[in-house]
Amino acid sequence: MPRYKILIEYDGTGFCGWQKQSNGVSIQVAIEDAILKFTEEKVEIFGASRTDAGVHARGQVAHFDLAKNFPEKTIVAAINYHLRPNKISIIECKKVGQDFHARFSAKRKLYEYTILNRLSPPTIDREYAWYVRPKLNIAAMRGAANLIQGQHDFIGLQTSECQSKSTVRTIESIIITKKGDKILIKISAQSFIHKMVRNIVGALKMVGTEHWNAEKVKATLNATKPIEHKLTAPAKGLCLMKISY
Amino acid sequence: MPRYKILIEYDGTGFCGWQKQSNGVSIQVAIEDAILKFTEEKVEIFGASRTDAGVHARGQVAHFDLAKNFPEKTIVAAINYHLRPNKISIIECKKVGQDFHARFSAKRKLYEYTILNRLSPPTIDREYAWYVRPKLNIAAMRGAANLIQGQHDFIGLQTSECQSKSTVRTIESIIITKKGDKILIKISAQSFIHKMVRNIVGALKMVGTEHWNAEKVKATLNATKPIEHKLTAPAKGLCLMKISY
Repeated sequence: MPRYKILIEYDGTGFCGWQKQSNGVSIQVAIEDAILKFTEEKVEIFGASRTDAGVHARGQVAHFDLAKNFPEKTIVAAINYHLRPNKISIIECKKVGQDFHARFSAKRKLYEYTILNRLSPPTIDREYAWYVRPKLNIAAMRGAANLIQGQHDFIGLQTSECQSKSTVRTIESIIITKKGDKILIKISAQSFIHKMVRNIVGALKMVGTEHWNAEKVKATLNATKPIEHKLTAPAKGLCLMKISY
Repeated sequence: MPRYKILIEYDGTGFCGWQKQSNGVSIQVAIEDAILKFTEEKVEIFGASRTDAGVHARGQVAHFDLAKNFPEKTIVAAINYHLRPNKISIIECKKVGQDFHARFSAKRKLYEYTILNRLSPPTIDREYAWYVRPKLNIAAMRGAANLIQGQHDFIGLQTSECQSKSTVRTIESIIITKKGDKILIKISAQSFIHKMVRNIVGALKMVGTEHWNAEKVKATLNATKPIEHKLTAPAKGLCLMKISY
């Protein structure tokens, strides 16, 4: 039974997220439906990251097994044909061994968050960036990012929906760059707890507007139980860029 | 009577273009309406470039006169307030002398055209790029771009709607870069004839797919009357980036 690994790009606008849900159309189900139409096999696909409603991806990875053996190029073309007109696209397909698991084999996940930081409202970037009007202090944000890098118990930022047993995670890097009026925040780690990237971005924004200082960041990282907060940055600014194996 | 110069960004999707027209909403009219709501003055605004339906802009410039004198920041905030929810945004406003004319004072216009060149259909970039499936030969496109740079009579590419007296134009530069699966074509000149950028991009794409060779490009540049063609690249891949004065 061949296992297929697919690389997926999507515009998360209007989807209820990666994962199958009772309300709304999920990316997962849209792809499973396309596979069913093409192969007449009802399969379950496993994604590397369960992106939330509205989150975009240029580098999501998933795997699935089929009874039949298809050329990799046929998989790409046929799923894409049946995915139309959804804004979901299979970029690549590779046959992999049965020991490959899109989620559990992942060594690193890279996300990019886009903040549009200027006085004027967004136009072209409206669905792909968080519009933040007050001028952000990027040096302060970089300082806070340095504190957040490394291993911490992120229980302070844990959401009530979080299903992870442990909330200890290791942030490999947070890189903040400015490109015109955009601030790009690249965050990589082997794994994240629920909404962790958006909560970190929310905390960095609080530092950028100078509502938070380094002490407040440290206190959040040292918390021993979930803190009530409204930090979560909007989904539309987030894009899953790459899963490394 | 103060004259105001404004820098404008817009998502051209769904607009009938910059210029006032009988069918559809134009960017110009949307901004004029916003100025009317704010100042109660009915003004005509003059744009540097009359972008076609569906073309985007990050650096359009326009000017207009008002009887009243407003601070520049008030102009930006008030027009943007009344432009909502249109995807049009005033980025900046400067008071200028009566000798400034957005169109006639322009020294250089810079456009960027985005081609998405890969086997898989676009998602996030669907409204902002021309999706071209066959692999393009970028070296050949750069060779053709070198031929197109400089001064030529572009009558071969003239459209029937073109109102320019002369079809002689000087292309300052065409720079083609590859960024992942995107090909970006930056074209600058003091002025262009109607649909000239999209027709040049269409010709470069014909070279990229190897349907056209250098001889065909030269013949087009040496034409003495309009050639019948279907070169025009889709509007959605085009973005007006900058007007220099």
